[in-house]
Amino acid sequence: MGRVTKRRRVLRIREGAPSVRPDTLVAEEPLEIRLGGKPLAITMRTPGDDFALAAGFLVSEGVLGLAEELANIVYCAGAATDGVSNTYNVVDVRLAPGVPTPTITLERNVYTTSSCGLCGKASLDAVRTTARWPIADTPQLRVETDLLAALPSRLRAAQQVFDRTGGLHAAALFSKEGELLDLREDVGRHNAVDKLIGRALRSGDLPLSQHILLVSGRASFELAQKAVMAGIPVLAAVSAPSSLAVDLATETGLTLVGFLRGDSMNVYAGEQRITLRPEAAGRRGRTLSAPIA
Amino acid sequence: MGRVTKRRRVLRIREGAPSVRPDTLVAEEPLEIRLGGKPLAITMRTPGDDFALAAGFLVSEGVLGLAEELANIVYCAGAATDGVSNTYNVVDVRLAPGVPTPTITLERNVYTTSSCGLCGKASLDAVRTTARWPIADTPQLRVETDLLAALPSRLRAAQQVFDRTGGLHAAALFSKEGELLDLREDVGRHNAVDKLIGRALRSGDLPLSQHILLVSGRASFELAQKAVMAGIPVLAAVSAPSSLAVDLATETGLTLVGFLRGDSMNVYAGEQRITLRPEAAGRRGRTLSAPIA
Repeated sequence: MGRVTKRRRVLRIREGAPSVRPDTLVAEEPLEIRLGGKPLAITMRTPGDDFALAAGFLVSEGVLGLAEELANIVYCAGAATDGVSNTYNVVDVRLAPGVPTPTITLERNVYTTSSCGLCGKASLDAVRTTARWPIADTPQLRVETDLLAALPSRLRAAQQVFDRTGGLHAAALFSKEGELLDLREDVGRHNAVDKLIGRALRSGDLPLSQHILLVSGRASFELAQKAVMAGIPVLAAVSAPSSLAVDLATETGLTLVGFLRGDSMNVYAGEQRITLRPEAAGRRGRTLSAPIA
Repeated sequence: MGRVTKRRRVLRIREGAPSVRPDTLVAEEPLEIRLGGKPLAITMRTPGDDFALAAGFLVSEGVLGLAEELANIVYCAGAATDGVSNTYNVVDVRLAPGVPTPTITLERNVYTTSSCGLCGKASLDAVRTTARWPIADTPQLRVETDLLAALPSRLRAAQQVFDRTGGLHAAALFSKEGELLDLREDVGRHNAVDKLIGRALRSGDLPLSQHILLVSGRASFELAQKAVMAGIPVLAAVSAPSSLAVDLATETGLTLVGFLRGDSMNVYAGEQRITLRPEAAGRRGRTLSAPIA
């Protein structure tokens, strides 16, 4: 079974001054739930309690209600086909004799495509092959930390529905100069990003290779994937990223910034696009100049 | 097209004293995305920008990349079959001639079952029929506002992974006396709840008819649905509920508490289970005694 947290290298910036240290991230990995050997759903989850997750999912779906209706749950040995991943990301639930298998097709792929997801490695491969505009090929974009630090308050000021309900995720598209170009709010964070990207597509603006995407919450694998698919080179989040988001960013060349609050931020990947405030670097006596290599 | 926000009646409790007022909630409704007439995905979204949402979703899935690859997007007239709902929750995307339709089956039903979801009304019907332990039949449970107010700090104190990563959703199960019985953390809020419920199932503890479910974030339709399916009569959330969560709670008899912070909370449904602090009601000279009718 995977770990609940993972360690990744992070570039911390406080008051403009950088330091490199290890950071602890919440682990995110796909879990495929099978029912009687047949794939039923894939969910992006934190490893641990996988049998309970599968059982609870089936309660939510109305399949299970009592302990005796459940025969057993096992990890599928040998389910991974890429020769790399472990097999702890596929579980098979077997119902007790007489318990009806649902006739409806339950499909709840919180994960974005059903063709991949047996393991994090396979997912990353799938994204990389389908991305039309490789981020790594983007003409070099440089973003100053001061510019990034100013973005959350601009997003917040433009959020209309949140002010009335407190119940929305927001995603905003900024120019490289920090100008707010578009803002979408939605009860689902992935929808807010899809709306931004869909508007850009219809305007003929893809790839968004000179833009910054800011999200009001956390940076999951799914959001990082959306940024990559739209050719956006910088994804910034007000809260924490997941381990798989960082892995995807690292592999694709996406710049991923988390915990963007006030003067502080963590850069998890693609730090070559981040430039420091000159006086802060100098004040700390550091030789680092923009960009950080 | 639906509205971005909806108004619902709410019982506000501040320092133990109640008042009834209208509240503005973020609207949540399912959207079915079709590709060339074929159902592709259902997502729970805030109405508005639906064509952009559909287009952006297809960018994220690698189907679309340029404006000219998109022929058009239309709302499906007459798609609803229940005779009640509007037809603005189904969109059909048509690709330009020559653009390949994806060969992979894209299934991304963020919504929990694919058998329903054309409209909020249909979804609610489906949940109601599949719930094994109708909440309304639950032996009367009474919960004092002071007890509810104490729960978030107990959840927070027990959150181990959040302290290290800042990147997790938490869900906790409490007894009616306010004792923390179980706590699960996950990168996905629905997973944290599924893990709680799955553990209870395997322990033979369903239905959880004398329990309180507390979630660290917002209360979406999906979370309310999970509570109902496990027979949990009280769902409390630290943040805002969506309109559809409130509608589901109202229809099933679930007690739904939102914005549970310090001494304050909003009761959106099932207020017959909430009892007031006696002195607060008395101090304000209210005749309200437990329970609030």
